[in-house]
Amino acid sequence: MKVGFIGFGEVSYRLSKILFDKGFDVLTSVEGRSIKTKELVGSIDYIKCLSNFEEVAKKSDILISANSPNSALAIALKYGSLTEGIFLDFNNISPDTSKSIANFLSDDHFVDSAIMGKVLSDEINIFLSGKLANKIANYFDSSSDIKLTVVSENIGDVSCLKVLRSMYTKGVSALLIETFETAKKLGLDESLWEILELTENNSFIDSSKSRINNSYKSSKRKYEELEEVLNFVSLVNDDEQDNMMVEVTRDKFRVLKNK
Amino acid sequence: MKVGFIGFGEVSYRLSKILFDKGFDVLTSVEGRSIKTKELVGSIDYIKCLSNFEEVAKKSDILISANSPNSALAIALKYGSLTEGIFLDFNNISPDTSKSIANFLSDDHFVDSAIMGKVLSDEINIFLSGKLANKIANYFDSSSDIKLTVVSENIGDVSCLKVLRSMYTKGVSALLIETFETAKKLGLDESLWEILELTENNSFIDSSKSRINNSYKSSKRKYEELEEVLNFVSLVNDDEQDNMMVEVTRDKFRVLKNK
Repeated sequence: MKVGFIGFGEVSYRLSKILFDKGFDVLTSVEGRSIKTKELVGSIDYIKCLSNFEEVAKKSDILISANSPNSALAIALKYGSLTEGIFLDFNNISPDTSKSIANFLSDDHFVDSAIMGKVLSDEINIFLSGKLANKIANYFDSSSDIKLTVVSENIGDVSCLKVLRSMYTKGVSALLIETFETAKKLGLDESLWEILELTENNSFIDSSKSRINNSYKSSKRKYEELEEVLNFVSLVNDDEQDNMMVEVTRDKFRVLKNK
Repeated sequence: MKVGFIGFGEVSYRLSKILFDKGFDVLTSVEGRSIKTKELVGSIDYIKCLSNFEEVAKKSDILISANSPNSALAIALKYGSLTEGIFLDFNNISPDTSKSIANFLSDDHFVDSAIMGKVLSDEINIFLSGKLANKIANYFDSSSDIKLTVVSENIGDVSCLKVLRSMYTKGVSALLIETFETAKKLGLDESLWEILELTENNSFIDSSKSRINNSYKSSKRKYEELEEVLNFVSLVNDDEQDNMMVEVTRDKFRVLKNK
């Protein structure tokens, strides 16, 4: 079985090695690519380097695009339509882009997919959804260095999960920034790191589920505490913009307690 | 040296054992206390049980209040004024309550203090601030089962740290609730737990500092991504109240990119 790569950086390099070891033929091209990529591809003996990407697309049973989010749509439209196999996009594209590709290629040729977690960790984690998700999971075959998770048959579900992940992790970033900008004004940022390290290094799922339960259960008390927190933080930060996260947290707990 | 406890639950029990092993005399009383507390205190042979808390207060070099936040102020005013030693409050009180106690007892008799992290973990972590914070840290003496951290000589700094911690952790709770309520509507909550477990189980300090740096560096791109996230989430959640956290996260990144 032939797997073709359009774009050959870190992701393609790791994935191609794993798939070659599983018996796949690995195809790519260096047409129009950087010297760095040409050198990398040239140094890997298991790669079959074709003269252009049209050929890669036509010959592949599975075609993988791993470039940048900006070029993802153009590549999908140009090469995805040339392949008779299945097209996968690992460019961390938005749900809109994913939907455009799905509309164009249909779920007979496109599987919604994403690498979650670190690419450079021991295990590559790939989440898949769509009619052909199970097929890909079977072809790639979970092992110690690659784990495939089929979310559902609905194309779009993996894209939704990327949005939900983004919603959470960027919210945490915004919270961290607001909290530590406030702590710095008080000269307490180093101590705060020490304290949060004591509570935040627990198992994520267990501690998060217990946070959710406690928040529903004690929403009234927590709302009152947040009133105090906001009063205090407002004294430290003159500018309302510096209290946005804590203010909305208070508002969120008001909604919860009134539900 | 004598350490007296007003209130004898989990915190006092663990702390008294550690301090007894370090050579302290441990005093308390069961005047007006529950049968459960009377039984617990009666079963511990190293405790000197006095007839009332006035006596405990008068005889103690260090007096520890470990009750509930509601009763903390009354206890501090009543018994804190009777002791010639140092009064410590471990009731997780608000900064306002802490300030009231400090005003009443002055920093010659009061040290701002809090137990951070889990009481039942291997090591009790106590943070202290105030003129006498170093004195307490020396008396109690860090060892494998107790760690004392002196934040500063400013009474109030430990209370501030409790507020900052609360600002962050309650914000995370609000984010978790909003994200997982949205994920549930899409039937994707179980998959989302799996995915976040891959990214959120890293070392807290390292991953948080890298989040802060990345957010400042790529605030414009993240703002644009959050516009997409918000568009998407608004389609899932009709009620604006269900999008509060993601909306303010977007707004926060708009502020960051315009700074």
